[in-house]
Amino acid sequence: MAKNKLPRQSEDFPQWYVEVVKQSGMAEHGMAKGSMVIKPHGYAVWEFIQRAMDDRFKATGHENLYFPLLIPMKIFEKEAEHVEGFSPELAVVTHGGGQELEEPLAIRPTSEAAIWSTYGKWMQSYRDLPFLYNQWCNVLRWEMRTRLFLRTSEFLWQEGHTAHASSEEAWEEVLRMLEVYREVVEDVLAIPVLKGRKSAKERFAGAVETVTIEALMRDAKALQSGTSHFLGQNFSKAYDCRFLNQEGEQEYAWGTSWGFSTRMVGGTIMAHGDDAGLRLPPAVAPVQVVVVPIYRNDDEQGSVLAVAEKVRDALAGNNVRVKVDDRDQHRPGFKFAEWELKGVPVRIEIGPKDVEADQVVVAQRVSGAKETRSTADAIASMASLLDHAQRSLYEDARAYREANTHEITSYESFVEGVDAEGGFWIGGWCGDRACEDKATDDSKATIRLLPIEREDPGAPCAVCGKAGTERATWARAY
Amino acid sequence: MAKNKLPRQSEDFPQWYVEVVKQSGMAEHGMAKGSMVIKPHGYAVWEFIQRAMDDRFKATGHENLYFPLLIPMKIFEKEAEHVEGFSPELAVVTHGGGQELEEPLAIRPTSEAAIWSTYGKWMQSYRDLPFLYNQWCNVLRWEMRTRLFLRTSEFLWQEGHTAHASSEEAWEEVLRMLEVYREVVEDVLAIPVLKGRKSAKERFAGAVETVTIEALMRDAKALQSGTSHFLGQNFSKAYDCRFLNQEGEQEYAWGTSWGFSTRMVGGTIMAHGDDAGLRLPPAVAPVQVVVVPIYRNDDEQGSVLAVAEKVRDALAGNNVRVKVDDRDQHRPGFKFAEWELKGVPVRIEIGPKDVEADQVVVAQRVSGAKETRSTADAIASMASLLDHAQRSLYEDARAYREANTHEITSYESFVEGVDAEGGFWIGGWCGDRACEDKATDDSKATIRLLPIEREDPGAPCAVCGKAGTERATWARAY
Repeated sequence: MAKNKLPRQSEDFPQWYVEVVKQSGMAEHGMAKGSMVIKPHGYAVWEFIQRAMDDRFKATGHENLYFPLLIPMKIFEKEAEHVEGFSPELAVVTHGGGQELEEPLAIRPTSEAAIWSTYGKWMQSYRDLPFLYNQWCNVLRWEMRTRLFLRTSEFLWQEGHTAHASSEEAWEEVLRMLEVYREVVEDVLAIPVLKGRKSAKERFAGAVETVTIEALMRDAKALQSGTSHFLGQNFSKAYDCRFLNQEGEQEYAWGTSWGFSTRMVGGTIMAHGDDAGLRLPPAVAPVQVVVVPIYRNDDEQGSVLAVAEKVRDALAGNNVRVKVDDRDQHRPGFKFAEWELKGVPVRIEIGPKDVEADQVVVAQRVSGAKETRSTADAIASMASLLDHAQRSLYEDARAYREANTHEITSYESFVEGVDAEGGFWIGGWCGDRACEDKATDDSKATIRLLPIEREDPGAPCAVCGKAGTERATWARAY
Repeated sequence: MAKNKLPRQSEDFPQWYVEVVKQSGMAEHGMAKGSMVIKPHGYAVWEFIQRAMDDRFKATGHENLYFPLLIPMKIFEKEAEHVEGFSPELAVVTHGGGQELEEPLAIRPTSEAAIWSTYGKWMQSYRDLPFLYNQWCNVLRWEMRTRLFLRTSEFLWQEGHTAHASSEEAWEEVLRMLEVYREVVEDVLAIPVLKGRKSAKERFAGAVETVTIEALMRDAKALQSGTSHFLGQNFSKAYDCRFLNQEGEQEYAWGTSWGFSTRMVGGTIMAHGDDAGLRLPPAVAPVQVVVVPIYRNDDEQGSVLAVAEKVRDALAGNNVRVKVDDRDQHRPGFKFAEWELKGVPVRIEIGPKDVEADQVVVAQRVSGAKETRSTADAIASMASLLDHAQRSLYEDARAYREANTHEITSYESFVEGVDAEGGFWIGGWCGDRACEDKATDDSKATIRLLPIEREDPGAPCAVCGKAGTERATWARAY
């Protein structure tokens, strides 16, 4: 660990990202092409995200369940747009138990097909609705170009699938879950996001509307950070999911789905990391405080370690996730660099002189501040130091996004600006797919979002100059 | 729900099991053969098991990580016994992204191959060890005869995979994790278990030793409830996982693996259920107390519901998982039966007269007791009622197991007894595979376990009559 120097983030962001993911022990490539091993330091971040999400899912009335990994191809093919969108990415099981299967089975790329092919059996009357269900699972979308966390064949996620008795109720659910995503990404991952609606081109295959939260990474590229889909009656019609409504008539149910994945572990790395490595938000840092004892001989080791353990116990008693790095084979400087690389928010250094003076050195990863404090003060102030780190990361990322958000003043400056600086570019759009395609061809930026409620953009289309009907936010994206 | 009458447990246990699983909303069959949909009521039980396990894994120093679903066949084939054991059960992906793959990929039936093919890269020195890692995931072992929870192609589990610098340390780990399993199964699922070692025939494919916990279901059949494997150096040699030991020599690492699956949701159903349905241990009951309001008109409904909600809030404030069943379309009797079927430990009934008298009716699922208590007393005594239910289930199951455990007095009475009564049968064994095979042929019972430490059985082999070297516990098993 920490064996190789990291590339500078500003000089080679992609290489910086790969190296920081590997060297910090977050993840590495797996044996099969396109696959990833999520290592303990990375998986622990995912567990904190899971807990934050799952608590909120339950608080909003959802229950978890589990549908099978393998979906018979004929089931999968019933929703035309959906299968068209996902077919090119399917992995297919053709042999099982030593025999060729009569019917091939797709590994789920998402579970709308599996779930809606079952929901019909579960609904008779409007009284049975809504179904507010979620599952935590792995999905697979064939990829040959792996980017750890961001683009791998298999990834972990949650997928919510709800069914409602009215269009209005389903749309409310779509927005409710987008708000849950915003809250977790902003409050837990400390990443500011923009909320919006996708253009028809960028929509989920099979959805009527897709809404999204979008964040800006430190290379000024956008990352789609969570999406929530209004499915209308597309899947209920494809899979014949009807219920008896309050008027005594058969009606197709109204659907939503929403997903959030391990990709956001990558987002957390790219939104906050710096040249020294990760900077983890305390809310998801597996270790929030590391205590590094400093000594030159056995005598010093004994007294320093005793204090280090006392500090650890006091912090742990205050619900701080704390660890003493008592490894004997490494020097303090090596340990400092390694814990910085791993993004631990606070480091406490304790040497023999500190023990004598009843003090410790407190080094903060986010601000870079390093100062001597009395031992008691270091312990008492830790919660507020961690809180400060959490807020600073958010504020830094917000300032960065604001500095990298531009109004489009002319088509040429937009295309050139995207190429030169990245960032979000906002301007009028006439709503035509032709303009969307042309701008994407010219700039490699895509429409990341439109306002959720359609509103007058107050500007003509930035591409064709005709009357604008939407205000579009563009960016190059992961 | 609760539409069909349950078969009597004593008359047709298998059919009782299928019906209770489906009618209680625990699970149902999926679209693909051998697959299962775990429904919210069943998945919630699994979540409580996961939490109980995961907390204990972390308390014993383990971290979670995640290895890929798909394993290249050539990787899988390196450990000869392992591949021989699992090959017949593999599902194989041959196509991905619309193309035939150069090399087929197996869906993991277990992850030793994936993990040990990687561990070698992570270990240099003894200082890097132990690796104490676990993953929560799905695995797939091809099955055509589905039994919900007990035998499905795909199931959910955790698999721990550890690497150690010495044989002794690895063996300690094997026993430590078996003890964690025992603790969760006995203390959380309220199912008493026997601990022991498997015979060579019953061992995990690729292990040097397998230890197990075994429980007795209410049809007197045994259920293997969790296994922990001492892998010796089998996998480290197959995948070249060496480290520099304290003596400065290259040594192959010592391995363990241990797994616990959704099968034990089925075990919980079969260990405790009765003719009325599930009896869930309070520790894993998604709803611990259901409050059923009883009324004949709107006036009564208003006052009864107000009290029901007050009781709910008071119990929820005491960390009881409580729900008011305020559905208008069902009569109280229907609700009583449904919640009994779902195994809710305590039901509180509140009618207009109860409201007047400031009292409620408390019905206990396990004991069947039903009594009127003051509202305050019902609330104050709930924790102890739930605790009592948890202990009663355990004691009932233990008494049942004891009544169904027999010493083998003669080979004939053993073979006949297994067939007539099921249960555990204990006797001497000479250690020969031939005797093991013969007894299994004759009785359909298998050796469920041997004492972990080899000891004089004090009796000759129950099969051949020669000197016994082990004391074997036999049963027919799931």
